[in-house]
Amino acid sequence: MNQKISELQKWLRSNNFKACIIPTADPHQSEYTEEYYKLRAYMSGFTGSAGTLVITDSKAALFTDSRYHIQASIQLQGSGIELMKSGLPGVPEYPAWLKDEVKDAPVAANAALFSTDSWENLQDELNLTDCSAFESLWAGRTPLCDSKIFIHDVKYSGEETQSKLNRVRDILRENGADFCVISNLDDIAWLLNIRGADVAFNPVVRSYVAVTESSCTLFCDEEKADIGVQEYMDANNIELMPYNSIAAYIERMAGKSMLFDRKSLSYNLYKAAEKCKDRINLPLFISRLRAVKNETEIEGYHQSMIKDGVVWVKFLKWFTEGLESGEKITERSVMAKIRELKEAQPLFVDESFGTIAGYAEHGAIGHYAASAESDSVIERKSFIVIDTGTHYLTGTTDTTRTVACGELTDEERTDYTLVLKGHIALGTAIFPVGTKGSQLDILARQFLWQRSMNYGHGTGHGVGHLLNVHEGYAWLRPSENDVKYEAGLTMTDEPGIYREGRHGIRIENTVLVTPHSKSEFGEFLTFEHLTLAPYCLEAIITDMLTPDEKLFINNYNKRLKNTLKEYLSADENLFLEKITYEI
Amino acid sequence: MNQKISELQKWLRSNNFKACIIPTADPHQSEYTEEYYKLRAYMSGFTGSAGTLVITDSKAALFTDSRYHIQASIQLQGSGIELMKSGLPGVPEYPAWLKDEVKDAPVAANAALFSTDSWENLQDELNLTDCSAFESLWAGRTPLCDSKIFIHDVKYSGEETQSKLNRVRDILRENGADFCVISNLDDIAWLLNIRGADVAFNPVVRSYVAVTESSCTLFCDEEKADIGVQEYMDANNIELMPYNSIAAYIERMAGKSMLFDRKSLSYNLYKAAEKCKDRINLPLFISRLRAVKNETEIEGYHQSMIKDGVVWVKFLKWFTEGLESGEKITERSVMAKIRELKEAQPLFVDESFGTIAGYAEHGAIGHYAASAESDSVIERKSFIVIDTGTHYLTGTTDTTRTVACGELTDEERTDYTLVLKGHIALGTAIFPVGTKGSQLDILARQFLWQRSMNYGHGTGHGVGHLLNVHEGYAWLRPSENDVKYEAGLTMTDEPGIYREGRHGIRIENTVLVTPHSKSEFGEFLTFEHLTLAPYCLEAIITDMLTPDEKLFINNYNKRLKNTLKEYLSADENLFLEKITYEI
Repeated sequence: MNQKISELQKWLRSNNFKACIIPTADPHQSEYTEEYYKLRAYMSGFTGSAGTLVITDSKAALFTDSRYHIQASIQLQGSGIELMKSGLPGVPEYPAWLKDEVKDAPVAANAALFSTDSWENLQDELNLTDCSAFESLWAGRTPLCDSKIFIHDVKYSGEETQSKLNRVRDILRENGADFCVISNLDDIAWLLNIRGADVAFNPVVRSYVAVTESSCTLFCDEEKADIGVQEYMDANNIELMPYNSIAAYIERMAGKSMLFDRKSLSYNLYKAAEKCKDRINLPLFISRLRAVKNETEIEGYHQSMIKDGVVWVKFLKWFTEGLESGEKITERSVMAKIRELKEAQPLFVDESFGTIAGYAEHGAIGHYAASAESDSVIERKSFIVIDTGTHYLTGTTDTTRTVACGELTDEERTDYTLVLKGHIALGTAIFPVGTKGSQLDILARQFLWQRSMNYGHGTGHGVGHLLNVHEGYAWLRPSENDVKYEAGLTMTDEPGIYREGRHGIRIENTVLVTPHSKSEFGEFLTFEHLTLAPYCLEAIITDMLTPDEKLFINNYNKRLKNTLKEYLSADENLFLEKITYEI
Repeated sequence: MNQKISELQKWLRSNNFKACIIPTADPHQSEYTEEYYKLRAYMSGFTGSAGTLVITDSKAALFTDSRYHIQASIQLQGSGIELMKSGLPGVPEYPAWLKDEVKDAPVAANAALFSTDSWENLQDELNLTDCSAFESLWAGRTPLCDSKIFIHDVKYSGEETQSKLNRVRDILRENGADFCVISNLDDIAWLLNIRGADVAFNPVVRSYVAVTESSCTLFCDEEKADIGVQEYMDANNIELMPYNSIAAYIERMAGKSMLFDRKSLSYNLYKAAEKCKDRINLPLFISRLRAVKNETEIEGYHQSMIKDGVVWVKFLKWFTEGLESGEKITERSVMAKIRELKEAQPLFVDESFGTIAGYAEHGAIGHYAASAESDSVIERKSFIVIDTGTHYLTGTTDTTRTVACGELTDEERTDYTLVLKGHIALGTAIFPVGTKGSQLDILARQFLWQRSMNYGHGTGHGVGHLLNVHEGYAWLRPSENDVKYEAGLTMTDEPGIYREGRHGIRIENTVLVTPHSKSEFGEFLTFEHLTLAPYCLEAIITDMLTPDEKLFINNYNKRLKNTLKEYLSADENLFLEKITYEI
């Protein structure tokens, strides 16, 4: 067993605990967290973005989903930590596994890191104690981030904070609530038109917000708000209070009705509200407002996609010509080149996640991050999967292209074509208002399933607007969620296929849900493809495409060329013309 | 307001109720009920199989789903009862509507007719009182049915009752329960290998069953069990007790743990168990056992489909030649002819539901039942939708064919082809073990959606084995349920399209979920088409079909002809050949 785990087990024994749970979480249930909250990575050595480490006095197990099965199995080697591949048949959920291990013996966990919903579910199974003392075993813990707040101009966000607050107060009234507490960092950033840099790739501000009929309070560390920000808050009648005073604020609201989201608010704050008259659970009540983009935001996406489209063309030209002239190109030089090209674009803020550049068998690792050790040199064969996105002030992008590096095998071309067919089938779907992501998901999988193939991740996710690229509202995956699709949602369409040790393929566009038609059968929606990046035509077996599928590709390429022409040099336009021939 | 409703409103006022709820239900949550329980139809005049009548002291409203919107709007004319078209945008659920009407005033309803789950949900919104006294206003109420039990031979059911009981006792042990109460009539009939005739088209026995580690008790009226049945029960160690003694039995189990299904057991019996140590909810715990068919049952389905296939061919010959020779054929003569042909088949028990024969615009009425008044004469144009099924001792069938009666319009042929493409896409799907019906449903809708069309019913339902044709387990529809598909399930594949006042189209096969393949990506399933009935080739626009879709039809027809040949006369085989040409 690795030493950190052994020490924690010693701590457990001397504190009369039988086990502890270390989730991947911060007090805001963020998908991605500041370094300060990465205790699970510190303890286990596994650096993926999702997973739960469970430690008993004699065992340690890490539960993570299929995106990370390969990465975790490598990073956990020799650690003594058992890898539990969540989602595979026969693999239990961690609460059931732990129940089986420790029965009713005391288990420690930090309640601030669990949503009300998940803590209460855990309580049903386990003898839980709210305890964070074991976190002090983390030597050299990174301090909390002190990034500054900046105001996201209404010329990009499209709606004044006062207007957004009015919509929140309408929700309070409709639900008979006196106040609401918002802990989701994307919700807060959207609501107050503020941004920060507290979490890598996520321009959010570590904070809470409480809204009543007549007040709005932002709980965040004072040093985050410069004088300009303080003036903005004053002008908007928003009070600033210390980050750590949120629990006391909630306690002072005894006798009032609190609106909150059980799956978002952490259990310790839910508990602080136990003297409230009522605690009204309303799922995703800010997230829906945030997910339906306004006209300014949509126009911003178009602008962002043009910038990204220019990056893609310039990159592909560099990559293709570099390979042809025998230059040494590696996964990490691909990542660096893409970043360099993005930084040259106006209104660039950051990448929206670390670029994934996985050559050949590395493409089969879901969220592969090339390290100095793993960095492959690109050869003149197989694929490179490039999944990259950008935050511009005008909006966030997320695009994946799988690019042929040389000669392809029949299997590679067949796999590429099947994934592309699914991408097109979903991306050209027409569907009634109110359809859910769990219904649409199969459109992207059907051609793979017909050949007994499948992929272990969802097909799409909502895309934030200068916020988390995984927006967390309109998921598009087999598991059910209640979100009904409506015009204005932005999301991805990204099927894939992964053959361990051989190659991976993923094709992803960011798309916009948009009205299609009204008929005697109701109102219908469709997707507009926002992403502007060439597909890899040479990887397609064109005989496997229907005339409609070919038409989609040819029309897409026409639009791509027309839109980007004025932003590209003559050479670049020539190159683009060459790789977007009619099929 | 109709007089029955006025009298009920008088009763409400004199008994200090503000409203009452009359569901479509019996104490077993049966989809179809005996006449005795059809109070909703008696009070409202609406005879569909689903709907809830809600009566306040000044209003009456009937809530029913899209299958019955047209029928209910006709049957409710002049009744003073408002039709609430459930499922349409802006139409509330009946509890919300009633809450809005009566606030916290007392509402009467018969708790025996509500599942525990639905009663407790209603209680959250309304001030409910368990009361059935108002049912006495029903003058001339049909008495309860006194049909006799018959034993369903193991040569048809494929598993002895003792073996089934052992499987139930395994479930008791796994869940730490002392006993279970089963109120679903199909579950009981399956478990004890008994059948009856208490509900039209549903060969079930009005009864309850309780199972403990060492006993099994059947609660049913004594006169239902002839001496042979009593001997069978003795031989199987099954005790007989009066139907009405179930509540007292449950009360006597104070201190024990009861396993039950919240969505099945009625609230009054749940209440009878309030002194139990534990009430453990396990959804569909018998239904899953019942829904996964054994080899004998599957072989029985094949036998049943051959019989039904013969009926279809003989019927189509009679219908086609009749129309050609100018005979007067009506919807009701179609229904009668089909029944006559079925009755001539060996092992025929009953039809599995009233045949729907809807000509032209009647085809657009979801569950149309031709009456003497509505009975259309078939003309040499448009479609007739024929949805029919049969109970044989060897199993139950459910098939719909839409048949051209003469010249078709372009719209009719386009609609037929789009529905057929959906039927084939779903019916040829390959999908991972564990896929849910809500995921697959879209495969049947996608081509309609692409033209802004849709249908308002589910795409498929489980099919019982000499039991309710709507098996109630593996639904295949947009709304989520937790049932994961596995080999052995039988269900329907039945998309449609309905153009009010013009025509309807539905194409339905009964299919069997069957293993397809194993690969590095997991185990995959597919459907085997059990139904043997010719599609209407002349209604197909063959240019709209892909080569694979044509192959499906041609292969289906080959199998159909080979399988039925020996059961048909030379003339019938000639006719079949003529209508199953290669496309």
